Amino acid sequence: MPRIAYFGPQGTFTEQAARRLAPGHELTPAETISAALAAVRKGEADAACVPVENSVEGAVAATLDGLAEEDPLVAVAEELLPVHFTVLVREENAPVRTVASHPHALAQVRHWIERNLPGAQTVAASSTAAAAVAVQRGEYDAAVTAPVAVEHYPLPVLATGVADVPDARTRFLLVQPPGPLPAPTGADRTSIVAAAENRTGALAELLTELAFRGINLTRLDARPIKGNFGLYRFFIDFEGHLTEPRIGDAVAALRRRCNNVRFLGSHPRADGVAPTIAPSAANEDFTGAADWVAAVRRGETA
Amino acid sequence: MPRIAYFGPQGTFTEQAARRLAPGHELTPAETISAALAAVRKGEADAACVPVENSVEGAVAATLDGLAEEDPLVAVAEELLPVHFTVLVREENAPVRTVASHPHALAQVRHWIERNLPGAQTVAASSTAAAAVAVQRGEYDAAVTAPVAVEHYPLPVLATGVADVPDARTRFLLVQPPGPLPAPTGADRTSIVAAAENRTGALAELLTELAFRGINLTRLDARPIKGNFGLYRFFIDFEGHLTEPRIGDAVAALRRRCNNVRFLGSHPRADGVAPTIAPSAANEDFTGAADWVAAVRRGETA
Repeated sequence: MPRIAYFGPQGTFTEQAARRLAPGHELTPAETISAALAAVRKGEADAACVPVENSVEGAVAATLDGLAEEDPLVAVAEELLPVHFTVLVREENAPVRTVASHPHALAQVRHWIERNLPGAQTVAASSTAAAAVAVQRGEYDAAVTAPVAVEHYPLPVLATGVADVPDARTRFLLVQPPGPLPAPTGADRTSIVAAAENRTGALAELLTELAFRGINLTRLDARPIKGNFGLYRFFIDFEGHLTEPRIGDAVAALRRRCNNVRFLGSHPRADGVAPTIAPSAANEDFTGAADWVAAVRRGETA
Repeated sequence: MPRIAYFGPQGTFTEQAARRLAPGHELTPAETISAALAAVRKGEADAACVPVENSVEGAVAATLDGLAEEDPLVAVAEELLPVHFTVLVREENAPVRTVASHPHALAQVRHWIERNLPGAQTVAASSTAAAAVAVQRGEYDAAVTAPVAVEHYPLPVLATGVADVPDARTRFLLVQPPGPLPAPTGADRTSIVAAAENRTGALAELLTELAFRGINLTRLDARPIKGNFGLYRFFIDFEGHLTEPRIGDAVAALRRRCNNVRFLGSHPRADGVAPTIAPSAANEDFTGAADWVAAVRRGETA
């Protein structure tokens, strides 16, 4: 049975995503995102589940950096989870004076706490699950956690579905070493990372290779390259699957312009959105044009 | 005397940056980045000092979102601080079992703690200064703080200049309501934010407007627009000053393509790096060409 490492501890949103991405598989929590990826690189796990993007907080830096560096890992699936928190308390019907959670989680429920637990002091914990553990130990009165936490930490539930931004979502990836690509579904996402040359227009050229082929970006993140202030890697997600002629053509052009392009995966989109295809930019247009050139080269037509 | 709000509490890197950006001015800590910006918008402060970018952690989301939303604020100066931490302890020569700090700070000194305080448990605090306060109260044995913290929290110093990545740096901005721009120095940075239309090629077109005028990007960040998963704002920094003909020409083109472009400031670069100017892309080339068109329109030449 494949073993899945996930960014733990138990009882976090990432565990919830891992259960949905790899149902019935053996799930092992890792202490950090970097440890989850290392477990796959060392062969201790077959795949890793890590968060990649949150609609409020933005990109998850540790995941992007972890995929760009060291041995290649490729995303084969993604999951989109609504960020709705559950508030667990030490004691039912007792006053709540302290609320613990990860600082990112506290930032996403600040208004809810002001309205529902006025005067409560917020305390930073290393994860939503660590906050639940601290409440169990009697250190704080309440913890803001992932819904799955209640299965590991049997504390009274004060509230569920808690979120200041009601449609906040986090996207998770299941990554593994390079191997056969997942089959294209017609609603796929492809991801690459490239360290563009530090010269005028380098990034504009990469994006224009995609735009001129009618390929729609779904995300672009710039991350500083450690120890090189002012030098960046660009993480580019776009519609389509590498097996499609139009996408293969574009990715080859990116690689030609930038030989440190790394492929980060082609997999179905969790939201099922199909690509928009511009005129003259369909796969048949690409194969039709390539067939015509081949026929001209063979002297069959002109 | 101008009043400066900064992202506090006292004793953080942002206070240190504010002292350098506004020496001798009245500095008032704000509890959050958003509160520091709000103080300026409400007229309670004349300017705010906030972090915008860290070479390890990347962009500071709260600052970018806070500048893109609500009334315009414009950066008039920047400061670049090396991220070298000071480790304060409760008691000299006592064993250190617990080390508190902001999770971002702990992430940047993890290797140092493993080597120098093996076995110590790390504890998340809401800021580096809050960790120092907790150590003063006797809750933890050590705090990882900004160098300036020692002036506010007189605790024994265990180590200074602590950093896993030796050249990590954070960039800070001094922002205020729109007004006269700082004079150009020949080594300036201009920043804008644009919510590119959600269609193929929209971002490539914006970047190409800059690239075709030979203007070098210094940073590009994509931030999700709250409540719109998959819709992004692009924060674009580039070399030059809005008063230069080449930069004015480019920014007008960006505004023409995207009427929600907002100007975030033109100010001297803290690193003093002068722009690279491509052939035919100097200010004299722009004014020379405009003068020629004007002369042709007047019928004086052809």
